[in-house]
Amino acid sequence: MYPESLRNLIEGFKSFPGIGEKTAERLAFSVLDADTEKVGAFIDSMKDVKEKIHPCKICNHLTENEICEICSNKLRDQSTLCVVEDPRSVILFERLGSYNGMYHVLNGLISPMEGINPEDIGIDKLLSRIKENNFKEIILAVKPSIEGETTALYIKKILDGLPLRVSKIASGIPIGADMEYIDSMTLERALLDRKNIE
Amino acid sequence: MYPESLRNLIEGFKSFPGIGEKTAERLAFSVLDADTEKVGAFIDSMKDVKEKIHPCKICNHLTENEICEICSNKLRDQSTLCVVEDPRSVILFERLGSYNGMYHVLNGLISPMEGINPEDIGIDKLLSRIKENNFKEIILAVKPSIEGETTALYIKKILDGLPLRVSKIASGIPIGADMEYIDSMTLERALLDRKNIE
Repeated sequence: MYPESLRNLIEGFKSFPGIGEKTAERLAFSVLDADTEKVGAFIDSMKDVKEKIHPCKICNHLTENEICEICSNKLRDQSTLCVVEDPRSVILFERLGSYNGMYHVLNGLISPMEGINPEDIGIDKLLSRIKENNFKEIILAVKPSIEGETTALYIKKILDGLPLRVSKIASGIPIGADMEYIDSMTLERALLDRKNIE
Repeated sequence: MYPESLRNLIEGFKSFPGIGEKTAERLAFSVLDADTEKVGAFIDSMKDVKEKIHPCKICNHLTENEICEICSNKLRDQSTLCVVEDPRSVILFERLGSYNGMYHVLNGLISPMEGINPEDIGIDKLLSRIKENNFKEIILAVKPSIEGETTALYIKKILDGLPLRVSKIASGIPIGADMEYIDSMTLERALLDRKNIE
């Protein structure tokens, strides 16, 4: 029903996460309708991303340089290291504006079910970095799933004996959530991790 | 917070209709994570669409050839012409599979409010085509908005006197819709256009 090139573009859009047939059609038509110049600029930005961006040599966060802006920033607190599972988490924390320490980006989380082992997510690089620096605290900021817990426990274990505080960000009921929509695992965790009112 | 090239790509995605900041970020990251080869193929399909697709010389529908597949198909009913406002409408009707006539794609709808006049949407080309062919019926398949009604009335007027049936697709309550969610204009129209039960 579509000319071949348009069909190919629709299929291309459909291969993006969360894009279904209808949205892909809408996007493909908007490429068709857009100025050639604008589409050219979009294509260039896509090429740029593939060519220029790579992991920071120190922390694995995305950068166009050898060392990312966060690792290069000497004004940040060099004694705290926040370990995250992907570069998007760094962005989320940076957006908060309240964390001023360093980051280390893992290549995902340990998942024995999917055959993802500690060496696959770059634990060695993390361990070397921690040993070569004088961090006072390692904050594990991974999601509270089986994989996240496994990864956190593994890191906690290999850091055993080092003069460090190893912490994990809190799980519980999201602020503003309605109790009735909270799943039972989250509720159970919130109960277990209850805190004294001070 | 993002490397410049990634920020540019996110902005690029945001310029698509219906794509907000979060979705744009997700799409940009998936470009970053995708195989370079796959991104290359996607870029090529985008270039192809801009280079190969143009309006059919007869009906304005999208095609990679001079004449589109529908206009070239001699097995279709050459006596019925369905007038639509854009190429997407052709796709919608073709998907039904029940319409076997020809199409004519306007370049949008007449809108005095936005300064879009009959000559802007290619009414001349439509009129010439109708005069040069032996259509028995012209079906106006434009949306039931002020612009759609204006366009339909205008076409009806300029075809006055020609030996043709000029019809318009029905407006009313969508099949399966809940009455309570129908807006008052649609309900009013459904009431006005009521049919005898046969």
